Amino acid sequence: MKRVCFTLQVRPDRLDEYRRRHAAVWPDMLRALRDAGWHDYSLFLRDDGLLVGYLLTEDLAAAQAAMDATDVNSRWQAQMAEFFEGLDDGRPDLGFQVLDEVFNLDDQLEAIDDS
Amino acid sequence: MKRVCFTLQVRPDRLDEYRRRHAAVWPDMLRALRDAGWHDYSLFLRDDGLLVGYLLTEDLAAAQAAMDATDVNSRWQAQMAEFFEGLDDGRPDLGFQVLDEVFNLDDQLEAIDDS
Repeated sequence: MKRVCFTLQVRPDRLDEYRRRHAAVWPDMLRALRDAGWHDYSLFLRDDGLLVGYLLTEDLAAAQAAMDATDVNSRWQAQMAEFFEGLDDGRPDLGFQVLDEVFNLDDQLEAIDDS
Repeated sequence: MKRVCFTLQVRPDRLDEYRRRHAAVWPDMLRALRDAGWHDYSLFLRDDGLLVGYLLTEDLAAAQAAMDATDVNSRWQAQMAEFFEGLDDGRPDLGFQVLDEVFNLDDQLEAIDDS
């Protein structure tokens, strides 16, 4: 599984509502994410609206495409689009910025063959 | 275990060296982190210098304190301090900003008792 980290920018005036909407996401959206190969998926919010996503997945493009093929994702993303800044096409699920992994403790411990 | 996400800001003119320094961290620093209770710890870097850390730990304050008590951490952090912006006391290991978790897929799937 690959570790993926991405960022989006939530509008500072919508932080409270963004939090509320994510406190109990629609059950069919949760099941769709699970079935589409999103694992250990969390969202973290900074006070200035920086949103960080972290997940494990076999293939991010495939996991995004699998969600894109569901009706529930279209309904969810249409409601979420207005919460974000700087999205050219208004698609938070496809418009996020993926960061480069520059360090992982477990991988480097394995590389030094530590036991 | 608690999921922790934090941010720091790397100086844009030092990104390449920051990456190089993290491609193979000192073995004694890796072992110290593991022994201090840092698990599944990754660092992700955005092109503008935003650095995101993600880890699992029983207790972040205890994991930070355990590192703070090691000699290798003092040596490592002294070398790392110059790479960062906006650190009041120059301590990247204690001066990072922790984000709030606003969503976790597994927790919410469990809450709807899905099987």
